[in-house]
Amino acid sequence: MRLRNKPWAKDKLAEHSNIVIHNPEQYKGQWNKYFGNDYPIYIEVGTGKGRFVTEMAKQYPDVNFIGVELQPSVIVGALDLILEEQPPNVRLLNQNAEDLPHFFDKGEVSRVYLNFSDPWPKNRHEKRRLTYESFLAVFQSILQEKGEIHFKTDNQGLFEYSLHSFSKYGMILNNVSLDLHNSDFESNVMTEYEEKFSNKGNRIYRCEAAFQS
Amino acid sequence: MRLRNKPWAKDKLAEHSNIVIHNPEQYKGQWNKYFGNDYPIYIEVGTGKGRFVTEMAKQYPDVNFIGVELQPSVIVGALDLILEEQPPNVRLLNQNAEDLPHFFDKGEVSRVYLNFSDPWPKNRHEKRRLTYESFLAVFQSILQEKGEIHFKTDNQGLFEYSLHSFSKYGMILNNVSLDLHNSDFESNVMTEYEEKFSNKGNRIYRCEAAFQS
Ligand SMILES: C[S@@+](CC[C@H](N)C(=O)[O-])C[C@H]1O[C@@H](n2cnc3c(N)ncnc32)[C@H](O)[C@@H]1O
Ligand SMILES: C[S@@+](CC[C@H](N)C(=O)[O-])C[C@H]1O[C@@H](n2cnc3c(N)ncnc32)[C@H](O)[C@@H]1O
Repeated sequence: MRLRNKPWAKDKLAEHSNIVIHNPEQYKGQWNKYFGNDYPIYIEVGTGKGRFVTEMAKQYPDVNFIGVELQPSVIVGALDLILEEQPPNVRLLNQNAEDLPHFFDKGEVSRVYLNFSDPWPKNRHEKRRLTYESFLAVFQSILQEKGEIHFKTDNQGLFEYSLHSFSKYGMILNNVSLDLHNSDFESNVMTEYEEKFSNKGNRIYRCEAAFQS
Repeated sequence: MRLRNKPWAKDKLAEHSNIVIHNPEQYKGQWNKYFGNDYPIYIEVGTGKGRFVTEMAKQYPDVNFIGVELQPSVIVGALDLILEEQPPNVRLLNQNAEDLPHFFDKGEVSRVYLNFSDPWPKNRHEKRRLTYESFLAVFQSILQEKGEIHFKTDNQGLFEYSLHSFSKYGMILNNVSLDLHNSDFESNVMTEYEEKFSNKGNRIYRCEAAFQS
């Protein structure tokens, strides 16, 4: 994700604490109370400029969506989109995925989406990939029993690696698609990166990986 | 595999019982004695006209190879190739894969190759796919501890299904390649189908799936 220098980004995020939640520790174990309903909570990790999470929130009003993104200068784009579209069921966290266990209890999250995660192609950066085992342990620690990660990317190397990593963690791979845009998966919601890279002619890979506990 | 009517095929197989082993039950638990060495035994299931198993036998003289193929009219092609090339370390079984546990003890086989297995695309034919769970149980019952299946195909649907089936069986996926011929896998030995379908422009998919016991 190209980072423009946006010194005002943090201020803008702080101004909209009804959408970009500060100190999310305070809601740990209390998210359904916070949302005021008992809908399932789906999080997207590495949400970028937020098109996916915003569109999903509109299509699935009976789900609460939370987009998690590290970069203030990027997540501010997601904030703008949410301010424009006004879906009531989406929030943002300007946080690192590795801190998620501080914000959610085991079982509080029903699904994790990973879309076009940074590939970190060098072996020595394996630990930074969001499908590395330490991140899988993070996601498992907040997901419900047999919870799922829904993962898509155009990056062949990252997808190959992730199939290995998921299976090594004992996860079951469901609905694998090695060419999503030419498959019968009809409910696909495109992300910014997905549009860009599929327009370049790249195949999109997708799978659902289910934890066994 | 296109089947030409070859009524003489069975006779020819019978004539070469030094290569096409009849009543393989008799060697169960005795294969290393039969081969007269303690080299590992690798089997290929659905060996077709035998190019892979013959070429592998030549490249790896310290491995015993056994090609298993159901169709007499097809395996006779493999027999011809072996008669021509004369590698000492390859044999054939004109048998159905489902009978393998009658021929090998647990641990007697060190690796299973599946190359361009019939895809059986219809859901109701799932049980015929060589990566269906009942076949995985067959392979596990003859393989050494943590033994591996090395699988390649150009068939996208079969590969997607097999990733699911392997992971559901608790197997670990290693060295996944979603485009074998443009990967850094250097020791690839081509099969007849592989040449045909890669010449058509199809991608070749490959993975190694390891049992956990
Ligand atoms: C390549 S972008 C993809 C953005 C968006 N999902 C899409 O498909 O258009 C990946 C995003 O993940 C974010 N990211 C990477 N590691 C992260 C982490 N550990 N925690 C939170 N966000 C992360 C990056 O800042 C970047 O914005
Ligand atoms: C599509 S051909 C591929 C042949 C060769 N492996 C190649 O790559 O050129 C698949 C072969 O598997 C054989 N086959 C299918 N099911 C089998 C089974 N249950 N046991 C043994 N052979 C089988 C078929 O007869 C056919 O010759």
